[in-house]
Amino acid sequence: MNFSYEVMSDDDHARLMALYGPLTDDMRELIDAALRTEADPDAIATARAAVQAATDALRSKQRDDSQVVRYSVGGRPLVWNNAVIGLRNPIAPPLTIQHGDDGCSCWSEFTLNAAYEGPPGLVHGGVCALVLDHVLGEAASEGLTKPLFTGTITIRYVRGTPLGRLRAEAAVERTEGVKSFVSGHLSDGEGITAEAEGIFIKPAWARDAE
Amino acid sequence: MNFSYEVMSDDDHARLMALYGPLTDDMRELIDAALRTEADPDAIATARAAVQAATDALRSKQRDDSQVVRYSVGGRPLVWNNAVIGLRNPIAPPLTIQHGDDGCSCWSEFTLNAAYEGPPGLVHGGVCALVLDHVLGEAASEGLTKPLFTGTITIRYVRGTPLGRLRAEAAVERTEGVKSFVSGHLSDGEGITAEAEGIFIKPAWARDAE
Repeated sequence: MNFSYEVMSDDDHARLMALYGPLTDDMRELIDAALRTEADPDAIATARAAVQAATDALRSKQRDDSQVVRYSVGGRPLVWNNAVIGLRNPIAPPLTIQHGDDGCSCWSEFTLNAAYEGPPGLVHGGVCALVLDHVLGEAASEGLTKPLFTGTITIRYVRGTPLGRLRAEAAVERTEGVKSFVSGHLSDGEGITAEAEGIFIKPAWARDAE
Repeated sequence: MNFSYEVMSDDDHARLMALYGPLTDDMRELIDAALRTEADPDAIATARAAVQAATDALRSKQRDDSQVVRYSVGGRPLVWNNAVIGLRNPIAPPLTIQHGDDGCSCWSEFTLNAAYEGPPGLVHGGVCALVLDHVLGEAASEGLTKPLFTGTITIRYVRGTPLGRLRAEAAVERTEGVKSFVSGHLSDGEGITAEAEGIFIKPAWARDAE
């Protein structure tokens, strides 16, 4: 795949988010309804036909993935397809990341519903890892503005994380040469449910560019 | 939440999967179409109305999450809502897990599309962690038939994992008392992209029951 980058204006970004954001929210509602449906076969058939009609409407004009244009807005990459924070990706909860004034910490409060389940009533342990990987990466990269890749990440599960309202936070502990050491945790109203430590590494091409 | 468990017959399971499976596949198509759409506002409005109609049809009869009945089939818990392998969860790729005859190893071959993206063209690092957490847990628990929880998991990222066809595998290395040590990796056609090591622990209530 070839990628080219274009700068998108704040106005265009706002216009497109107003167009696509509600569609994505509708799809999140659909996923929740589907996970909990006990509708009869006729109603399922009606739903399938409607979903297919929606797909057809969206396929009336499709991006060609072989020539993807990537956008940036205000100096940050536009990550609306991202699996964790993407406002156009119904798979993403999505998390809205808040960044600390220090430039090396962040947090997010969010809700995980039944679509993120592992054991009954609990968040899938891998989803905890998904969220923690993301917030540690956000802290290490100053909101995805610095090129970094994850070297290693370790998750320690303290107890089961209940579905519902949660908080994730992360901060850079120290930096040694090309390595940043970052820690964070996931918590519910009762306290920490999972802890994470990660090592993030500046890629060689970014070192050469300095 | 209260959970009760009921045994579902193989026939009922097959009937319900034939009812719900295609609906879930349709929703995966919808998600892909939505991520790549550049349709005009009228087409987006048409799609939103259709998605809402589908949601209404599915909501015609809904499970009450405060009294969830969980099912088991053939001695295995039914995990069709699971975020990684759930055949009724459009968020799950889903992975189909193959178990080795030794009872302590497993593997899966699967495709991750744009919904699982992090960096451009690459799988989100957290999604790699999600998949590896799941396959390590499957190996440790003999296909979710033994009660275990994840103690810690460490992911080492070897290189970026491209979107597309992938393979994940895991095996129990050794068991010491209540702890199982499991390792695994994720790979594409070129080789390993991420490695994982996990420690899984038998819960106290399961030890007491022995």
